[in-house]
Amino acid sequence: MTTKIEHVQQYLKKNALDGAFLTSTENVFYTTGFRSDPHERWLAVFVPSSGDSVLICPAMEVEDARHSGWTGDVIGYSDTENPIALLRDLVVTRAESLKSIAIESGHLTVDRLSILNESFGEFATHSIDQFMNDLRVVKTEDELVHLRKAASLADFAIEVACAELAEGKSELDVLATIEYELKRKGITEMAFSTMVLTGKNAASPHGTPGLTKIHYGDLVLFDLGVVYNGYCSDITRTVAFGEIGNEQRKIYETVLKAEQTALEMVKPGVKASDLDKAARQVIIDAGYGEFFPHRLGHGLGLNVHEYPSITSSNDLVLEEGMTFTIEPGIYVPNVAGVRIEDDLLVTADGCETLTKFPKELQFYR
Amino acid sequence: MTTKIEHVQQYLKKNALDGAFLTSTENVFYTTGFRSDPHERWLAVFVPSSGDSVLICPAMEVEDARHSGWTGDVIGYSDTENPIALLRDLVVTRAESLKSIAIESGHLTVDRLSILNESFGEFATHSIDQFMNDLRVVKTEDELVHLRKAASLADFAIEVACAELAEGKSELDVLATIEYELKRKGITEMAFSTMVLTGKNAASPHGTPGLTKIHYGDLVLFDLGVVYNGYCSDITRTVAFGEIGNEQRKIYETVLKAEQTALEMVKPGVKASDLDKAARQVIIDAGYGEFFPHRLGHGLGLNVHEYPSITSSNDLVLEEGMTFTIEPGIYVPNVAGVRIEDDLLVTADGCETLTKFPKELQFYR
Repeated sequence: MTTKIEHVQQYLKKNALDGAFLTSTENVFYTTGFRSDPHERWLAVFVPSSGDSVLICPAMEVEDARHSGWTGDVIGYSDTENPIALLRDLVVTRAESLKSIAIESGHLTVDRLSILNESFGEFATHSIDQFMNDLRVVKTEDELVHLRKAASLADFAIEVACAELAEGKSELDVLATIEYELKRKGITEMAFSTMVLTGKNAASPHGTPGLTKIHYGDLVLFDLGVVYNGYCSDITRTVAFGEIGNEQRKIYETVLKAEQTALEMVKPGVKASDLDKAARQVIIDAGYGEFFPHRLGHGLGLNVHEYPSITSSNDLVLEEGMTFTIEPGIYVPNVAGVRIEDDLLVTADGCETLTKFPKELQFYR
Repeated sequence: MTTKIEHVQQYLKKNALDGAFLTSTENVFYTTGFRSDPHERWLAVFVPSSGDSVLICPAMEVEDARHSGWTGDVIGYSDTENPIALLRDLVVTRAESLKSIAIESGHLTVDRLSILNESFGEFATHSIDQFMNDLRVVKTEDELVHLRKAASLADFAIEVACAELAEGKSELDVLATIEYELKRKGITEMAFSTMVLTGKNAASPHGTPGLTKIHYGDLVLFDLGVVYNGYCSDITRTVAFGEIGNEQRKIYETVLKAEQTALEMVKPGVKASDLDKAARQVIIDAGYGEFFPHRLGHGLGLNVHEYPSITSSNDLVLEEGMTFTIEPGIYVPNVAGVRIEDDLLVTADGCETLTKFPKELQFYR
């Protein structure tokens, strides 16, 4: 089997590039198996077009990198060393030429490109981002194991959330319990800041949970996801606490119909843009077009938001093995905010929904 | 009073720059009062050398930006619009010239610089990072209110953690309770991934909490911090669960002495490097030099790790109003891992320790 590093090397040779610097946590993990959030420190893997790749990480993480299964070269650096100068010293001994280098242009900062130039001299840069997106967009069976587990933990979290609903509890009370129960299951990292929004707060598509209390008659929106072995999930459910009004219910049913319309279209050969347009049309037809201000969905994998974006302007053709979210929403200020989001896998003839919590409007009290 | 935007404009004029793009969450918040994590979307404030600044954010966050108190221009963009093209259209109507622009070179990616060049043509770039660091490094009284509160919440979290220790509980059990109690106090965001490490796990300076159980005779290390109104805290305490051995105790006392040595030196006029060297010397003298693999500390404010770095090679002279951490540690594999960390404010004649949980070795069981 071709390793991921070998895929990168084939790409480098095909494009007459001397090497690649992969610098994002996700691409370093994808190619080396070592996952680390280096904060402001350097983390990188240098892949020459032929020969041995080198992982660069803080000295205090070298042992973790070894435990993660990376058997290649490692440069561990202290807080007073320049990791790129150390890499140059190694590269010099190998007499490798670095005249044209692939970089993650969507991740590498202007400063870091300068630092590379200081050590290696001026070189032609080439963006490797789209190649890495293309490589990562179709998930392997191994990856799907983690994505399915991440999705099932998101379902579990929604169950916890719903069981926690009670008159007078705050958004943060519920949020605290959700994450408490996930940690007890071994989840140390959420894919993004968990949202629990009730009543009017849910009518902002990017609200912040706070001390607002849940009251009878509220729609309550949960948007959350976990990181499991490096892979993310992302689910949204909106449920009713007590009886709700007719317009709230109409909004809910419209969002649900929009989501199901898109879900039913998903299969290899369909364009991403057509999913967005079809779901959006359902919402426009119901008179809520102006209240759906975001794209239909986004790719999902090592990043919670990754390639491809499911927008009306992205004509990417879906392939078997792609994973992404579908998440239409309607946010009418002072009336209701509803979003329903699932994680999908494109299969040979349709799609598999990885998140499975029910979508018929659920009532709690 | 000179506003922060005006400080930036003075800098632009002094350096004959036409404008600045601030793009990090922290610098946008610092200058506009609007805090947002845009994930892969653009968030920026464009500051012309004279005239009105413009905030650029996703359309669905415009209302939040207004609520945050920003009264200047806002460009809200949808997922199918190019925010920089929208900005160019606005700038064109103002007939502003953009021949030389300050950027956050440590934050702006190579791709985003290309996008700016596509809209505005080639321009000379100038890094504004050090200026922003210098502007932010001395905290105002308003900022100190938030930093003190963030530190007191970190103390509270350590109290929760210690009360939770019990034979057979896992690291994640304790971690779950810490964050649960913080959320119930309104804290929705930790400054970084909370660490609870017991026994051998604590001997890795960057370990990951898991299902390892706490046992009698373990040293347990907690490293955590909260974000309060945008400002971070960062505390580490190591406590004994039951009786510990002589070497564990010697390591603890050495780290404590190193920390106190540095704390006692802090005052305006002292070099950052001298703090690192003095603390490090205590650890070297005790025979543990090779087991202290990281810098002594880091600046603390809107970022949990910010300017200045407290390393042996940073000769920055301390000034009143600076805030940073002091956090020596000794990690001896299979023996013990101990780190003690406080958040400090440099005062007129010394320092104020913002984190106040006791540092004499605490025993629990």
